[in-house]
Formats: sequence, C-alpha cells, structure tokens
Amino acid sequence: MSDPTLQELLVRIQRLEDIEAIKQLKHRYLRSIDTADIVTLTTLLADDIEVDYKGGSYHWAVSGKQNVLDSIAAGFHNRAIAQHTGHHPEIEITSPTTATGLWYLTDSFTHLDSLYVTAGSALYRDNYVKLNGAWQIKRSSYTRIYEIVDRIAQAPNVTFSLLAATGSPPPQ
Amino acid sequence: MSDPTLQELLVRIQRLEDIEAIKQLKHRYLRSIDTADIVTLTTLLADDIEVDYKGGSYHWAVSGKQNVLDSIAAGFHNRAIAQHTGHHPEIEITSPTTATGLWYLTDSFTHLDSLYVTAGSALYRDNYVKLNGAWQIKRSSYTRIYEIVDRIAQAPNVTFSLLAATGSPPPQ
Amino acid sequence: MSDPTLQELLVRIQRLEDIEAIKQLKHRYLRSIDTADIVTLTTLLADDIEVDYKGGSYHWAVSGKQNVLDSIAAGFHNRAIAQHTGHHPEIEITSPTTATGLWYLTDSFTHLDSLYVTAGSALYRDNYVKLNGAWQIKRSSYTRIYEIVDRIAQAPNVTFSLLAATGSPPPQ
Repeated sequence: MSDPTLQELLVRIQRLEDIEAIKQLKHRYLRSIDTADIVTLTTLLADDIEVDYKGGSYHWAVSGKQNVLDSIAAGFHNRAIAQHTGHHPEIEITSPTTATGLWYLTDSFTHLDSLYVTAGSALYRDNYVKLNGAWQIKRSSYTRIYEIVDRIAQAPNVTFSLLAATGSPPPQ
Repeated sequence: MSDPTLQELLVRIQRLEDIEAIKQLKHRYLRSIDTADIVTLTTLLADDIEVDYKGGSYHWAVSGKQNVLDSIAAGFHNRAIAQHTGHHPEIEITSPTTATGLWYLTDSFTHLDSLYVTAGSALYRDNYVKLNGAWQIKRSSYTRIYEIVDRIAQAPNVTFSLLAATGSPPPQ
Repeated sequence: MSDPTLQELLVRIQRLEDIEAIKQLKHRYLRSIDTADIVTLTTLLADDIEVDYKGGSYHWAVSGKQNVLDSIAAGFHNRAIAQHTGHHPEIEITSPTTATGLWYLTDSFTHLDSLYVTAGSALYRDNYVKLNGAWQIKRSSYTRIYEIVDRIAQAPNVTFSLLAATGSPPPQ
C-alpha cells in the first residue's frame, strides 16, 4: 500500500469525529425531551428547524426553534411519563457542514391523568448542519413502524418521576 | 512520544471505519426485518449466510441467502407487530476482511390473530465478511437471556402498522 | 488547509479509540449484570470503584470491587428476569487516562417469586480510568427519570431464563 497523505487521513478522521458528534447531538436531544430540559434543547436546534412527526393518532409539524421548544415544553408536562430511545444510527456526512441521519426510535408516553399509553416505534430521517463548529438539528421527521394506543385500567404505581418536578402543568 | 508512521495511523483509522460500517450494517438489518424491507436485506447478507437463533419456544436455523430472505418474509407478515433493537455492540476486527460482533438484542413480536406476544432478550454472536469493500453478515447466531410468551386477553388498539402494508399475508 | 502533524492526528485517533473502548466497557458491563457473569465483571471494575444508584424505591451505594461484585451476585439471582440496556452515550475524554460518560438507562426487573416488576429509566453519570492500557469503571451513579413498581397478577410464562442457570438462589 502506498502511503496516504496527511490531508487524506485528516479527512477520514474528521468524518469519524463528525459521526460521533452527531450521535451525541441526537443523544442529548432525546435525553433532554424526556426530562423537559429546555435549556439544553436550546443549544441543539437550528434557528430555522423544521419538525414533522407523523404518528398513527397525531401529526406534529412545527417550524422555528422557539415554536419547537414551546411545543416540547407543552407536551412533556408534569403528568407525563415519557421514554424515547434512539437506536441504530445510520449517519452520512454529505459535506463539511451538512449530514443526514436515519434512526430507529422506540417510544412510550403515559398520561397519568387520562391513563392513555401511546407506544410504538418509528424511523427518524434527520438533517444536520454544522454552525461555528457545532452540529445542530436542522430538520427532523419520522414515520411510524407501528403505534398502539391503549387505556390502562388503573394508574401505575409511580415511585419516581423527574418530569413531575421539571415539567409544566399539562395544557388545559 | 515518537512520531507514528502514516501507515500506522492508516491502520488505526481503517479499524475505526470498519467498526462504524459494521454497526451500520447491523442497524440496517434490524430496521429492515421489522419493516419487511426484503430489497434492502438482499444487500446485507452473504450468499452463504448461516443463521442459528435459539429461542425458548423455537429454533430457527437456515442457511443460504435466498432461504433466509424467504424465511424473514414469511415471519414478518402483515398481521405481525415486530420490534427488534440491537444494543451494546462489541465489534472486533479480526483481519482486513473479517470481523466478529456481539450484540444484546431486545425484542417483542405480537401476532395480531393469535394474540400471542413473545418478548425477551438475547445475545447475538455474528461473523462479518468484507466483499468488494462492503461488509456483509456471514453468520449470525443468538441464544436467549430470557423469553416470555404470553397471550393477551384482547387485541391491542393498533393505530398504525407499517407491516400491514409491506408484509405478506401470514403463512397458512 | 495547512497539513496537520502526525502527532496531531494521533491525538485525534486516540480520542476516537478511547471513546469506542469505553462504550465497549459499558456494553460488556450491562451484558454481564443481566447474565450474572461475575467473572467478566471482575475485569471491568476498578479496585476502588464507587457505585451510587438512587431509585424511587431503593438507594444502592457500595464501594470496593469485591463488595460491588457480591452485591450484583445477590441481586441478579436465579428467580430474577433482568433487562438493563444503555442508550445515548455521551463520552468525554478528560485526560489520557480519565474520562466521563453520561448514559440513558432503560431497565426492568421482575422477581418471579414476589411478582413485583420494577421498570423505568435513569441517567448514568460515570467516571472511567485507564490502567495498563485498559479502561475500567471507577465511579458510576444514576438518578431516575422515572420508576414504576407494580405487582403482576400472575407469573409470566417464562419459556427461557439464563439467570435460572447462572444466578445464585435469592438471598433469604
């Protein structure tokens, strides 16, 4: 094998670093929604972010950072138990400052007042942009693999809920 | 520290790239089975692939790409809700064109007609091979950590199922 | 772009390798607790490890490798079904031999005698140390996102349990 150049190696290292940084970006996003950590979320979203999530029982489409933050704050309220985990990242770096990501989400959301539980999985298709050295979420959409909405017979025995402390009251 | 050579750095970068590529291969596989995406699966499996999955209630052993594809198409039918997520990859590159992988699977499978739900976890032990620059699954086996098979009292309220559209009718 | 030096590239590669090694360390830890693989666990923990896990219904704080191993062996007994999966790693290398990690745990634990099921999620905050070239867990703590403890009406239909073979009898 002939020797690679320093520049060739640099490009390959930069790609691996970008993939890792984008995984961490999405990881931070998912942790922040389930804990209603709006302060951290502010640092992760592009100003002109577009979100488009199609569930079986809802369609959530919002654009603009403040609108998305407001919508998350309303959804992840203090009577919710939320679990969103992102699996199977397939990140592609498309230029020094743009990238795409495909993720497999599994999620459940329990409303402790209505006792409805929404659970399922979905495929995220995201676009990321690098601004001043930091990756941000520019666009995020998902479509469902499956969704099940059932009402449980009685309230679960919740022995701890962080959202009870960090979330706002549910919208009226 | 004395300077490494360009070749030494190249070998280390190549290893990291191979690990990332193999993760993406398995991620694409898991996404494709739960969505009955046989076209994508065709690109991920070695021609002489061997599969050996030992559940508590079944033993699925098949070899040859077409047989594996046929078996997946029959299993992930349009009356199934399937969720297979791969966690905790421990990938080892054993040569420029061979690698092994250990993964922790969590899975659930609901048959909407019989109302049986099979859920559990397992440890995958995989072998991968690199052919014309692309990693493929050469052998995949798993043994269970646990498995629970229960019949649910009534059908879940399915508000969306992608397999309902992409899957074939269940085998008779 | 001016050429980077070999040393600059080496530092960046080393960081990526360390991140991957620490992920594998935690992956091996999680696989080993759910299978009561005490022999493997022995190789993953620092001699002076400190553990501090605050659940909603328990507080598990132990220090010293042997104490932690004994406690895990007692907890992951042969009448338990345990599932601990680590998601969303945010690993930061803080020096050539120290690092921190933030993980999103989802977990469930079923006691087949009492029929209590504890399920939830938590945020791990870990410290790692590199000793003789291998990363170890030096400190691990978590606080809950949520926890639900419910008693199920009847025993699940367990068709396989590895812990039934590898675990010890439950403590009296």
